[in-house]
Amino acid sequence: MQIAILGGTGDVGEGLAVRFARDSSHEVVVGSRDAPRAERAATTYRDDLVDRSGVDDAEIAVLRGCSNDEAVETADVVIACVPPEHLRATIDDLTSQFQRDAILVTPAVALRFTADGTHYERPEEGSYTAIAADAAPEDVPVVGAFHTLSAHRLGDLDRPLDADVLVVGDDSGARRTIADLAESIDGLRALDVGPTSNADAVETLTALQVTVGQHNDELRHVGVRFE
Amino acid sequence: MQIAILGGTGDVGEGLAVRFARDSSHEVVVGSRDAPRAERAATTYRDDLVDRSGVDDAEIAVLRGCSNDEAVETADVVIACVPPEHLRATIDDLTSQFQRDAILVTPAVALRFTADGTHYERPEEGSYTAIAADAAPEDVPVVGAFHTLSAHRLGDLDRPLDADVLVVGDDSGARRTIADLAESIDGLRALDVGPTSNADAVETLTALQVTVGQHNDELRHVGVRFE
Repeated sequence: MQIAILGGTGDVGEGLAVRFARDSSHEVVVGSRDAPRAERAATTYRDDLVDRSGVDDAEIAVLRGCSNDEAVETADVVIACVPPEHLRATIDDLTSQFQRDAILVTPAVALRFTADGTHYERPEEGSYTAIAADAAPEDVPVVGAFHTLSAHRLGDLDRPLDADVLVVGDDSGARRTIADLAESIDGLRALDVGPTSNADAVETLTALQVTVGQHNDELRHVGVRFE
Repeated sequence: MQIAILGGTGDVGEGLAVRFARDSSHEVVVGSRDAPRAERAATTYRDDLVDRSGVDDAEIAVLRGCSNDEAVETADVVIACVPPEHLRATIDDLTSQFQRDAILVTPAVALRFTADGTHYERPEEGSYTAIAADAAPEDVPVVGAFHTLSAHRLGDLDRPLDADVLVVGDDSGARRTIADLAESIDGLRALDVGPTSNADAVETLTALQVTVGQHNDELRHVGVRFE
């Protein structure tokens, strides 16, 4: 499967890109509005995997960079790791690029930080998953996932993950595909959370995780497990 | 410490009562509007602990039942395990009964169940912890805690717990006391989540846990861990 990671030069995008490249056999295409930047990032991720993490270069299926447009054109799954305020515009700009059977994934959450805690900024549409579903082409199912993973933990390849990925969206087949994709990363378990109407609770949990880290030094960059 | 569990004949109240009685040295007083019912419940809990769970009767400090009024009068900690719609009235009725240095704890959350998922019903006041804080006497600090524990799991004494308790409220000393109290139950870890302004995210997580159970049969009655 080919995975396009839009905003793949940011920290969540980087974390997902290196984990997929290391742990799965999927092809990873790092996208950016700035194609040369994406190419440089992909090269750096690959070098880091080989030189610092001892990954066999031959075992990395594909890890390359290009423009967001080009990344979407051949992708089976597009993960939009862009800031929440750019989510709708990013999708709007790319609607004609999506393959017919592609799935769009969004981990976007808008957070408001205060000294006392971090709060979820619920958008008018109900959730960021709902915004993505609204903006995406009709034949592209949208799935919310990967919200509750710490970018810092994802990027720290020396530390194994042990966390749940909550998968939410209106198309149950697309949820299953993304659940399988998530579990291709070592240490992740995917949990089905049903339709988009449940996405706001998942997005709120992300704020709570940051709050837990603010009040418990040893629990910064936490994941969450239901058990 | 003496713990009054208001609504101690309900399933959350029962679960907390039997766990505190079994695992801690705290005195547990089961409260109900109906005193004889509370007395009968406490006797049943005690018999079950001794007969079914093999607890040494002499190791149960205090486990008795009485009216809510009487339970509050001597309690160091009052846990209001009443339905969310009765939370404010229950506290209003008992304001003159609280000891000066008592702490009021609420696990209350209002949930709306649908076939697709379970949703948190955020009250106008912002959270149920905020409602309790609003209703409680001024010198009684209010702490939200125990929301994310499954009543079913609490009551199943054969199965060890392994879950976090999220402790939220404006008085940091009271939060610390309730965190220690929570950790007197085997298998629970308390996490400080800061002031009442963070309570809605904790209460929302309770809805998400129920949703996870709806979509994953093996994950009904789950707890949650941040790690």
